This record gives sequence, structure tokens and C-alpha cells, in this order.
Amino acid sequence: MEIELKTKIWLESGGERLFGDGPFDILARIEQTGSLKASADQINMSYSQAWHLIRMIENNLGYPVLKRQAGGAGGGHSTLTPKATRLMKAYREFRLEADKELTALYHKHLTFFTKSNK
Amino acid sequence: MEIELKTKIWLESGGERLFGDGPFDILARIEQTGSLKASADQINMSYSQAWHLIRMIENNLGYPVLKRQAGGAGGGHSTLTPKATRLMKAYREFRLEADKELTALYHKHLTFFTKSNK
Repeated sequence: MEIELKTKIWLESGGERLFGDGPFDILARIEQTGSLKASADQINMSYSQAWHLIRMIENNLGYPVLKRQAGGAGGGHSTLTPKATRLMKAYREFRLEADKELTALYHKHLTFFTKSNK
Repeated sequence: MEIELKTKIWLESGGERLFGDGPFDILARIEQTGSLKASADQINMSYSQAWHLIRMIENNLGYPVLKRQAGGAGGGHSTLTPKATRLMKAYREFRLEADKELTALYHKHLTFFTKSNK
């Protein structure tokens, strides 16, 4: 069985979560789908749970992350604010490099581990 | 308020946890204290919960991690097996370098984030 390296990364300030992999994931889905409803569906979350999550993220960051556009039956179209877009770009680069580095370190240090456990 | 980078790392095989920060933590405490009881106390865990955790770790890894020595009233003395000691050394080096790299990447990519959020 193949061994997978798993990681969770987040930022805290004064013991409170500020941003991290979870918020990044939902915002990345909204960037891609243009829809909070569709993004919530993808991760089996209700629309109201997703709104709650967005309000929490905005509360933690201290600024709006979604531009709201009232919609009709379809629930409207959601896009990220410019500030959230910049944050997503920075976090995405951070996360991609982090994964690359961690995988390299795993192969450097834990081959003993993987070999002796087969 | 200062922003802290938080991480959790673990290894999975076929969807099952194999080893990671949690098991590393309890085993590192046993290495240091020589006692499962004292290690459990440090993290507010009962002795039976700690035994359960050790059995789970051994089950996941497929080999014993503790050398059991029957004790008297004090609960005996616990040391790691040679195989567990080698695993701990490898994982410790991995984790220290991972922290160093992640902190460097955080400072490289997320200064925008920290500055704009003050």
C-alpha cells in the first residue's frame, strides 16, 4: 500500500484561526465555479453552512472576500474581491511550494520509515 | 497580535493513519520521561487512554514501540524499542526541517497577508 504524506496548514492570531487550507479550499472553488451554491454542493455542504463559513472567513480576515450579486432562482453569481484574490494568489504559491518542500523532506528523511514498514 | 503558522503532518496508507505528529508527541514524551504515566499526565490523558493510543500506534506500524517492564506501584519504566527509536530520530529530523522550510515559505509568500491584516 502506498504511503501518502498529509498536511494541514493554517494561520492563527491570538489563538484564533485567521486563514488556512479550509478557507482556501472554499474560496478556490468559488473562484472556479463563480457560485457559492455550486462550491457548497461540491463539498457536501448546505448553502446556509457555506454562507456561515464565508461570514466566518470575513470576520477572521477583517474584510469582505465575496462580491455579492443578488441573483434570481439560481442564487446569483459570486466572485472574489480584489483583496481576496491577492490573498488567494499568495496562499496558493505558498501552499504549492510547501507541498513540494515537504515531499522532498519526506523522501530525504523517511525512506527508512517507508521501507521498513512494507 | 502576532500571527502564528500552524501545521499538522501525518502519514496515511490506504486511508488509515500510519504515523504523524500525534504519535510522535506521545513517544517523544516517553523517551524523555521514561514513563507512560508521566507522559499521559503531561497531556491530560488517562493512563488507559494512553495505553490505547500506544496499542493503536503499534497496530498501525506493525511492530512494538514500547519495551514493557512490569513495575510496582509506580507503573514501571517505559523505553522505546530500537526500531521506534530509529523512527523517532528520522521523524524528528523531518519535522524540524519541515518547520524551518515552512516558516521560510511563509515569510516569502505571506508577508502581503500579514501586513495587510494588521
